Formats: sequence, C-alpha cells, structure tokens
Amino acid sequence: MSSNFGTLFRIATFGESHGPAVGVIVDGCPPRLEISAEEIQAELDKRRPGQSRLVTQRDEADQVEVLSGLFEGQTTGTSIALVVRNADHNSGAYDHLKDLYRPSHADYTYEAKFGIRDHRGGGRSSARETIGRVAAAAIARKLLTVGTGVEIVAWVDEVHTINASVDSEVVTSEMVEGHPTRCPDPEAADAMASAIEQARRDGDSLGGVVKFVVRNVPVGLGEPVFDKLDADLAKALMSLPATKGFEIGSGFAGTQMTGLSHNDAFTPGADGKPETATNNSGGIQGGMSNGAAITGRIAFKPTATISSEQDTVNTDGKAVKLAAKGRHDPCVLPRAIIMVESMIALVLADHWLRQKALDVL
Amino acid sequence: MSSNFGTLFRIATFGESHGPAVGVIVDGCPPRLEISAEEIQAELDKRRPGQSRLVTQRDEADQVEVLSGLFEGQTTGTSIALVVRNADHNSGAYDHLKDLYRPSHADYTYEAKFGIRDHRGGGRSSARETIGRVAAAAIARKLLTVGTGVEIVAWVDEVHTINASVDSEVVTSEMVEGHPTRCPDPEAADAMASAIEQARRDGDSLGGVVKFVVRNVPVGLGEPVFDKLDADLAKALMSLPATKGFEIGSGFAGTQMTGLSHNDAFTPGADGKPETATNNSGGIQGGMSNGAAITGRIAFKPTATISSEQDTVNTDGKAVKLAAKGRHDPCVLPRAIIMVESMIALVLADHWLRQKALDVL
Amino acid sequence: MSSNFGTLFRIATFGESHGPAVGVIVDGCPPRLEISAEEIQAELDKRRPGQSRLVTQRDEADQVEVLSGLFEGQTTGTSIALVVRNADHNSGAYDHLKDLYRPSHADYTYEAKFGIRDHRGGGRSSARETIGRVAAAAIARKLLTVGTGVEIVAWVDEVHTINASVDSEVVTSEMVEGHPTRCPDPEAADAMASAIEQARRDGDSLGGVVKFVVRNVPVGLGEPVFDKLDADLAKALMSLPATKGFEIGSGFAGTQMTGLSHNDAFTPGADGKPETATNNSGGIQGGMSNGAAITGRIAFKPTATISSEQDTVNTDGKAVKLAAKGRHDPCVLPRAIIMVESMIALVLADHWLRQKALDVL
Amino acid sequence: MSSNFGTLFRIATFGESHGPAVGVIVDGCPPRLEISAEEIQAELDKRRPGQSRLVTQRDEADQVEVLSGLFEGQTTGTSIALVVRNADHNSGAYDHLKDLYRPSHADYTYEAKFGIRDHRGGGRSSARETIGRVAAAAIARKLLTVGTGVEIVAWVDEVHTINASVDSEVVTSEMVEGHPTRCPDPEAADAMASAIEQARRDGDSLGGVVKFVVRNVPVGLGEPVFDKLDADLAKALMSLPATKGFEIGSGFAGTQMTGLSHNDAFTPGADGKPETATNNSGGIQGGMSNGAAITGRIAFKPTATISSEQDTVNTDGKAVKLAAKGRHDPCVLPRAIIMVESMIALVLADHWLRQKALDVL
Repeated sequence: MSSNFGTLFRIATFGESHGPAVGVIVDGCPPRLEISAEEIQAELDKRRPGQSRLVTQRDEADQVEVLSGLFEGQTTGTSIALVVRNADHNSGAYDHLKDLYRPSHADYTYEAKFGIRDHRGGGRSSARETIGRVAAAAIARKLLTVGTGVEIVAWVDEVHTINASVDSEVVTSEMVEGHPTRCPDPEAADAMASAIEQARRDGDSLGGVVKFVVRNVPVGLGEPVFDKLDADLAKALMSLPATKGFEIGSGFAGTQMTGLSHNDAFTPGADGKPETATNNSGGIQGGMSNGAAITGRIAFKPTATISSEQDTVNTDGKAVKLAAKGRHDPCVLPRAIIMVESMIALVLADHWLRQKALDVL
Repeated sequence: MSSNFGTLFRIATFGESHGPAVGVIVDGCPPRLEISAEEIQAELDKRRPGQSRLVTQRDEADQVEVLSGLFEGQTTGTSIALVVRNADHNSGAYDHLKDLYRPSHADYTYEAKFGIRDHRGGGRSSARETIGRVAAAAIARKLLTVGTGVEIVAWVDEVHTINASVDSEVVTSEMVEGHPTRCPDPEAADAMASAIEQARRDGDSLGGVVKFVVRNVPVGLGEPVFDKLDADLAKALMSLPATKGFEIGSGFAGTQMTGLSHNDAFTPGADGKPETATNNSGGIQGGMSNGAAITGRIAFKPTATISSEQDTVNTDGKAVKLAAKGRHDPCVLPRAIIMVESMIALVLADHWLRQKALDVL
Repeated sequence: MSSNFGTLFRIATFGESHGPAVGVIVDGCPPRLEISAEEIQAELDKRRPGQSRLVTQRDEADQVEVLSGLFEGQTTGTSIALVVRNADHNSGAYDHLKDLYRPSHADYTYEAKFGIRDHRGGGRSSARETIGRVAAAAIARKLLTVGTGVEIVAWVDEVHTINASVDSEVVTSEMVEGHPTRCPDPEAADAMASAIEQARRDGDSLGGVVKFVVRNVPVGLGEPVFDKLDADLAKALMSLPATKGFEIGSGFAGTQMTGLSHNDAFTPGADGKPETATNNSGGIQGGMSNGAAITGRIAFKPTATISSEQDTVNTDGKAVKLAAKGRHDPCVLPRAIIMVESMIALVLADHWLRQKALDVL
Repeated sequence: MSSNFGTLFRIATFGESHGPAVGVIVDGCPPRLEISAEEIQAELDKRRPGQSRLVTQRDEADQVEVLSGLFEGQTTGTSIALVVRNADHNSGAYDHLKDLYRPSHADYTYEAKFGIRDHRGGGRSSARETIGRVAAAAIARKLLTVGTGVEIVAWVDEVHTINASVDSEVVTSEMVEGHPTRCPDPEAADAMASAIEQARRDGDSLGGVVKFVVRNVPVGLGEPVFDKLDADLAKALMSLPATKGFEIGSGFAGTQMTGLSHNDAFTPGADGKPETATNNSGGIQGGMSNGAAITGRIAFKPTATISSEQDTVNTDGKAVKLAAKGRHDPCVLPRAIIMVESMIALVLADHWLRQKALDVL
C-alpha cells in the first residue's frame, strides 16, 4: 500500500537512504517497448546529487541495474525490477540525529506511526526514495513518446521571491537543462543561483514554484469522477517530498475571475475538433484531457535541512538544540524538475493504458 | 475504477443528473457503528439545492433510502447501499444542449472519451454525483467521531475578491452554518451574498476559496511514500467539480519564506509529546499527521454555467451561440462546504483503518 | 473490499435476503455496448426461485431496475447500478434462528467476525446475494459476445451418486435449459430429479458437480504469475455459496497420469497456429488461455438447510435442537448453473479488458 | 497487476530464470516484527534445487539479500525488498528451445500474449519465480506465528497412484521434513521415492496431491462475499505452477454425502465457544474461519518437462520433435510443499490484517 502507485502501469518502490540499495518494480508495462538501461540512466542522471554546486555534494553515481523484465532490448510484459546501490552511505554522520526529531522533517511522524525508524539520512523519507520513481518513469515516458507523442516539460519558475518569465508554449527541455537551476529564463536563473548560494552561506534554505506543461495529450484521458486527471496529478505531485500546493490551469488566481472571463470558449479547430480560445482549464475539463496543453504549478517549501541552529525536542521529550551536519540542498527545486516530470509521466502512462481498456468496441 | 474511491473504507458511486437515481455503496465500514438514516439525511440536507436564494432552485428533497448494511441501528460490516431518487428531472429543458458543447463543462471531454454522453443536466458530470459522496461520508464521519474525536470544519474564505477573516483555531460548524454563504465572518458573508446575487443578475458567476481545519487527528495517519495524507487529501479535493488548486499548511505563500522561518520548531508538549511552535506544515510532515491541526485551502473556479450568451461549437464542429436556460448556482462555494468536509472525512476514515492494520504487534 | 470483484470490469454487490433490496454497481464497462434491461432480466430469470418444484418456492419476481449507466440503449462508460427489490420477505419466519447457529451455515462465523448479524434468511450470506453477480454478468457476457464470440456453457454433471454423460464439445445452453435439473443428459436428469425430490421428502439434501466449457476464447488471456486465468476462475467459483472444490482440465484425475500421457502435444493447426492434440490443460497453460476450450468442474456440497432435526448450539453456548422451517432448495445445483456461468463471464470480461491494456504497441 | 498479490500484506515479485536475479517487494508488513535474513533463508532452503536426487540438480545457493525494510533486526513498516541472484544460468543450454513450443509449458501462451518471450529456462514462467513468494512468506509466517500462533503444515499425500496414510491432526513439519519426498508416511514415502526415480529413468514424470492443515486459526478470518477465505486460498494455490485442482474440507468427495451426514453439528466447546463435531467444512463456513483446523488438497500434474521425445510445433508452425536436455524435477511435489505453505501464509497474514481494520469499535 504505502509504496505502490498506479492502476495499470503500476510501480512499487523500496529502499532507505543508507540501506544497501533503492529501487522499483514496474508492473503492467506493455510488451515490446524498446528501452535500454542507458535511457533509464539518462533520466536518473538528472536527479543525481553533485551535478553542480547548487545541490547536495553527496557523491553517488546512482548507477541503475536492470534485474528483470527486459529481453534483447525490449520489455517482455512482465515485471521490471530496477536497482540502484547506495554507494556513499556514511551512516555515522547521522548518529547525532538518532535521539532527536529534526523540525519539519518526518522523524517524529515516522516514530509516531511505526514505533521504529531508520534515522540514517532520513531512512525511507530521504529524497533518494524518488530514484525508483524516476527510473520507472523513464519507461513510462518512453511508452508515452512511442505511443502518443506526449511531451512533458517542467521548469523552475520561482525561487523565493524571484520570478522567471517563461513562455510555456515554446519552452523545451533543452532550455530547462541549459542552466544548473533548471530555470529557462537566463536572467532569473542567475539571480536564483545567487540567492541559493547566499542561502547556503546563511545556513538557510529557499523554496519556490515549479511549473509544467504537457503537450500532445490525447483527448479523453482521465476518469470523470474520482480518478480525474487533475486529481491524479495532484496526488502524484503532492506525494513528492517538500510539496505544499498544486494548481491546474488558472489555479488560485482563477478565483479572482468571473465565469464570463474564465470560461474557455470553444472554437472550430483546424481539424474539425473543438479547440479552446483560452486555456484557463489547463487542458482538463471534468477531469478529462481536452486536447489543449495541460498546465500547472507546484509549490515546494524551503528545504527543512538547514545548518543554522534550531530548537527541537529529543526522543525523551526534552528541549534541545540542533545544527545539521549532513550534506544537503539549500533549494530542492533544480533536482525536483525530473521528479515532477516523472510523476506526470507515470500518471499519463497509466491513464493512457486505462483508456485502451475502454476503447474496445 | 472510474467511480471507486478509498482503500479500506471504500465507496462506489453511481447516477446521472436526470436518470432514476443517484447513490453509493460503502464497503469496508467496520461493524457495530451506530448510525441512522436521519444522520445521513442531515448531511445531505447541507448540500441540497434550494436552501437559499444563493443556490440553484432545482427542487429536490434528496431523500436517502438505506437498501442494505444496517441492522437494528448498526452497521453490519457488509456493504451499505444508499439511494436518492431524482425527483425534479425536467429533461426536456436540456434538449438544446444535446448537440453542442458548453464551454468549460465536461460535455466535449465526455464525448471524446466515451463516444456517447447523457446530455441531460450534465449526466454523470452533474454535481448531483456528489450526493453519493456526502451520504457515504456521513458514515465515515460518524466513524471518526466515535473512534477518534476528529473534528472537521470547512468554510467559505474567499468569494471573488472578498476575503473573510476567520480564526481557524476557534471556528465551528455552527458558525459556518449560521449564514447562507457558509462564511463565518458575518461582514464578509454579507458582502459575498451581495456579490453572488449581483453575479446572478449579471448573468455571470463567481469562484472563491474554501479553507478547512481538522482537529484532534491521531498522530501517524497517512503513508510515507505515495499515499501521503496530504497527497490523498489533494486527490480527494481535486476530484470535486470546479476545483483548480489545493494547498496544505503554508501552501504557495510558504515559498516566500526561508527555511529558518518556515520550519516548525518542536517544543515539549504538555503530555510529553512533541508539539510544533508554528504550523506551516499544516499538521502533516512527511505525509503523516503530526498531531497539530490539519489546515488547507481549495480553489473553486467561477461556475461554468452562466446565463450570458457565449461562443461555442456544436457537435458538427460549427461555431454557435449558447445561453444557459437551466437552473444553476452563480457560485458553488456555499454548497461545496459539505462536499469538502465529506471528502476529508472519507480520506481520514480510510487512513485510520489502514493504521489499525499496521498497529498489530 | 468484502463485496468488490474484478480489476477493470469491476463490480460491487450489496443487499441482504430480507432487507429492502439487493443489487450491484458495475464499474469499468466500456461505453457503447448495446444492452437492455430485458437482457439482464433474462439472465436473472434463470436463477429465480420458484421455477420448478426442484427449487425453493420463495415467491420472488426478481425484477431488475437500471438506476444508472445506460442511455438510449447503450452503456455510457460510467457506473451501472442495478437493483432488485426483495418482495417476499416474511422475516418473522426466521425469528427462531435469531439465537442459534445453523450447522454448516455462516451464522456462527458472521457473529464471530462482525459481532452482529442479520439473522433473517441468512442476511448477507443468503444466496440472494448472487443476484447482483448474475445481473452484472449479463453485461459482461454481452460484452464478451460482441467483442470476442466467447461462448460459456455450464451444466449439472453429477447429483449425489448419479453421473451424467455429456459431450462437452457439443453441449449447448439450449440443451441445458431443456430440463429443470439443468442436466443435458435426459436419462440422468430424470434420475437426478427423482433423487432431489426424494431428498426433500426425507428432510435431507444433495450435492453434486457442475461442469463447464468455454469456447472461442482468445489466445493469451490471463496473467502469468498470480492472476493466472485458472487461479482467477478458481477464486471466482469458490466464492459461490456451497462450493468445496475446483478443477481445471484434467484436475485431480490428472495426477494418476504420467507426463508422457498428460502432456498435450502441439500439432500444426489449420490456420497455422499451434493446436493441442489433447486438452488435459483445460485450455490454459501457464495461466494463459491457449485457444483450446476451457474446461473445469466445481463441487457443490449438499445444501446445509434441511428440515430434519439437527444438533446445534445457541448463542448462549447451550446445546439445542433445530429443525428448519423456511423454504429452501434440497439441491442447489440447478440454480447454480447461471451463477457459475456468471462468474466465468466476469473473470473473462475482466481479463479481456486487461489484455487490451497490454496490446498497445 | 500480473505480479502483485495481496490486499494489505502485499507482494510484488520479479525475475526470470536466467536473468540476473529474482526477488520480491513486500509492502504493508506491520512494523516491529523481529525477523532476520537467516529466517528467510531457512524457508528458501526448503525450495532450493539440489537437496536430494529426487529433485532438479541445478546448482543454486539461492542466497537472499535484504535490500530494504529491516532495521536493527526488525521490520520498519516500509517496503521490504529481497533479492536472490541467479548463479547457475547456463543459458546456452536452452538455445534449442528458442524456436519451438514445449508441450504443456507456457512457451506458446507467453508468445501469444506478449509477442515476445525470454525462452531461457522458461523465463518468467520458471518455478524460480516462486523464490520471491517463499521469501515474502517467510515474513508473513513469522507475523502469523507472533501475532496468532497459526501453524501451517503441508505434505505430499499422493504421488501418482501411491497414497500416504497421514493423520492430519498430529502431523508436524518435522515429520514432513524427515524424508526427501516430504511425505510423512515412511512406507509410502519410500515407494514414492522409488516411483519418482523410476520415472526419471523412464524419461517420464509424475504428479500427485498435496494436503495441508492449518491449526490455531483465529475465528472470523475471511470476507463473506468474494474474498472468502477458501476462495482466496483457491486462487493462491492455483496460482502455483502445475496445479490442476483445489479442495477445501470434504471437497469433491463431499458431493457423495447428503446434508444430514455432511453438516457439521455444533457442540458446546470447552471455552463456551461452539465447536463442530465433524469438519467437512474444512474450517471455513460462509467464507470465514470457524476455529476448526483448515484442511484442503491440491492436485499437481506430472511435470511437463520430460526427457522422452515428444511431438510439438516450432514457431513457424511446423511439426517437430523435442527431447528436453535441461535439468528438471521428475516430480515437483517435494519442492512444492514450501510453496503451498507459503501461499497459505500470505493469504492468512493478509486476512488477519484485514480483520484488524474491522475490529476497531
């Protein structure tokens, strides 16, 4: 339950930050999809630590091994197991965290829920858990590319008070990958980089907003009641560490409009299909894709791990002081981009397969 | 798939706006819960149309009938079927909608997905679908009350540009129910009522923001990876009609803070358990409840149905004009309150049961 | 959980023997399937009590009402709710069962599991629960007929010590429906009818064996590991009341053969596809259909309800005597045929849709 | 889907016979269960090849590695990943099988379903897939032992025409493990061993029947409608390779009795709880455990792999001759015992947890 995601394209992740390995099993992937370990590795490399000085310096190659489910370069239709060994697990660095609860981390809630916790590097609550998601999503994304032509682009749109100016209609992954911040507005990107480095020097951390656009989505993906496409995207993205908010289309700003201006008027499209003159719906109406680009935003809080001293309590319930010693990201957003894109890919691949099971008569 | 929700406390809804009935089956409700049809009816009455002039004048008693699962005033542990007959289904009023797609409704996406749609009153996409949710949630809520003392309060916090001032620590359901707008700030509530009536007169509609607080939540509810409590709340609430955004705790505003100010310092609590000095986490850390109040916000767009003339296309792909004739709400927020509380209750009841299946050694 | 079945073609049943109604919600049925209430009714009529003097004389019309999911004679792709009112619920006839446990019934286990039970006519454990299954399966069966040409025939093959001689390659539903016993061997059928009537006169009851054949199954249905087609059939059929055993293909008798004689040699088929010279596999190899007819057998125990006096205990744990007063079937097999065919249809429809979600590249 | 099993105690297996590894993820295991890699290994050793000359001589240590979910000797409540490397994968030995379909194997159905298959050693259809099941079940079994005292014993009761005489009330695992055949009747065991060796010499193979008894089962496990305990056991056991039949309690033989003799009369038990004078129900009534021992039988067909020459067709649809060259078991039953016990443990652990989520008021 706790580590399963998806209905037809289904994944189960495992692994703790300082255990032997992290990974994922993908079940329900259609057979005969051409995919290589290298393609999976390429996605993992985007979330790997140590890519620039903006992110944590933990030294991990994060090399994926395919244990099952591929044969002669293709998926077999059976479960695909992907494993990444944890290399740099200097567990001793976390001994001072064994008996206290870091503020705004999951230490206390893990202890309260399970009565036991692996305190080393956050254990299961570490962002290393997302390795399994990204690896699985590499396959989902290839499936979407081959089967539908769907294109997913996410980028850092805000860091703290710095806003980027990005045209969501033309932005590409290449533009996003062009700067260590993964903000495709060069001027804002440089300002963000400076702010992040300053935060690190201050023993502080920053949050921000990730924006995404999904193009070429087939019409009709998503279920009309509970498993609405936007509801499933909301869950998927709010299941990422450090997220605090989700918007689709006009989002909270849309509440300031009235129906007359918010409604997306239909117009006859070039191919005879209806198109919308505006896209306040964010590409989803009644929970189903309408053919327009799917657009949304996700809020990430400032990283909880900071090197400044903080008040907290220990496992005996006594007040103590804490200063983080481990390596960490002063701003998670640059490395969150691939996680956001991955979760979107997992949701869309799943709904695309679900639609195939409806389109049968 | 499309109409199922929940893992252990599981519901399946059914029904179209102008079919014979709407309803729900609840499966997985523990036995020996005392609950009456009257208690379920009381919740349904909160979402019933025709309660005030602010909401749609469709005349529906929405009387619930219990078909199974209760015996001598208690749940039996087997599936509970609840049905509400559709009384006022003047389907002819919708004939003019048969061959066109209303802007920002689900008409086109239903057609695209299924190749068939019940156009009468929106069919399955009608907000009448939420009757099943509210009826099921009446049981979930009773279960939470008896089993945990959880208290759920939602209210209208913003309508268009009007903001209420509400103290989330003290607000009660009685205060919310005290005004037809379901805004517990009397001054703002009156302004909202005026704005809603003006919108109706203008053939326009308004959106807004619902805020919620959940008190007395047991520590440790929610799963640490995908089924995070905030992720499941996000999905649940974004599955309601007309929602465009979700926030937990500090939400999007939290991205403007830094880690030093955003982190919720732990302090020794009265009972020896850690408490947080602030609550930017919104009562959830790492996806699990931490004992503080769960707080969040949901954005609702302006109602798509407006009586002003709009541009759209018909099923032949030709441009046409549309002016709505049916009864409708110029602002869904007052009736959305019970829907929001219901979805929260369904999520919490489910996670409470899931926790019982972990707490066994 | 307790009342849900299926992965993509998914049903949830509800209802007690003497509550207001029994029924089902079908979720995941593809849109645009032509189906009428009359077609569903025709299947229900096969399991209706009072069809002949061999079965219970409870007087129930078992008239189905469609509450949702059909529009202008077609499925809409959204959830289909079907309800049958309980007409003849003379609950008083069961007052003497309130405080004791009938042998080999579910009275004691319901009480032990739930701490509460609806004793009237067996409550949820009544065979009336299967009404929902049969109604839902009428839709599944139509889907299979339209989509695949699958043909399902089950029949009474043994009653107590009487064995029928039936050629499974040519037997048809018409032949089965030709005798009140639903045994298509006329001579054996008459003997069975006599034995059943004698058992009733003796205050006793009989069990027997149902055999089934499924023709025209597409190759490759079923999943290779847990959700093997035969495993899912086993679960489906063993979930019917009174079942004690299940066999696929050669079954228990196959254990008396050796590999040389048991193996089904492949031969080149007329269409170039491999065929098997024998069918000890029962049409399923490695959990997946191989194109040959699927064949199997199900054991049904003698009906637990008998009018002879029996020893039992009451709810106070004291030894008491019991003599059944209600109406009942001295042999469930004739009415079990449609239940067996229904469960097979539900499993096959589900796996057919699951296969559609794999066949996408 | 294809490789997932269980509702709350949930497993996902992976791995092909000649890929890098096989294994499993266990999700939903309660925290704080004491379990070591050694305890898991001890169960795996029971299914390991090469234990005696009765079974395949493939040389595999089948050493388990725990990748996640255990911390300081206890489960953490998060997903547990277990991996076993495939050591002796001499894939070249299978080259001659690449282009043909072995009779009564899954070669053809895999090809038909997926359009691709890993032919090396049966790929995913190899019995090595059950390693993941047995490893996961070692944890389930420990959970049952600690939480309930449930005791599961299975044994070889028949091989071909040789029947053992075993008292199911007193048989123990020690008695079963006392002979390489895993038949606890020494005389029959020796005859079985001779028959199996003779079959190997003859290039032939044998099937047989496994019997099981489960003692100390809490009353009330199992769900009353679809997820009946016997239905879930049927599915679990019929999902094992080579199974052809399943019986609970009186099974097919019970159809030869009448209601008067088949019904299990209740008598006042020592502790005031009802007991049954006989156990034709096999410990399950209405799908729920009644406190008596759960008893059943499973039919295993003769091994499909035999060294005698057989007729078959190749992938071009031409008739060819096949003689197996690989190592194989002439009779799977001795190694099937731990698989049977494992599947039973998985089902019971799951239902025990499900019951905990009902017993809350």
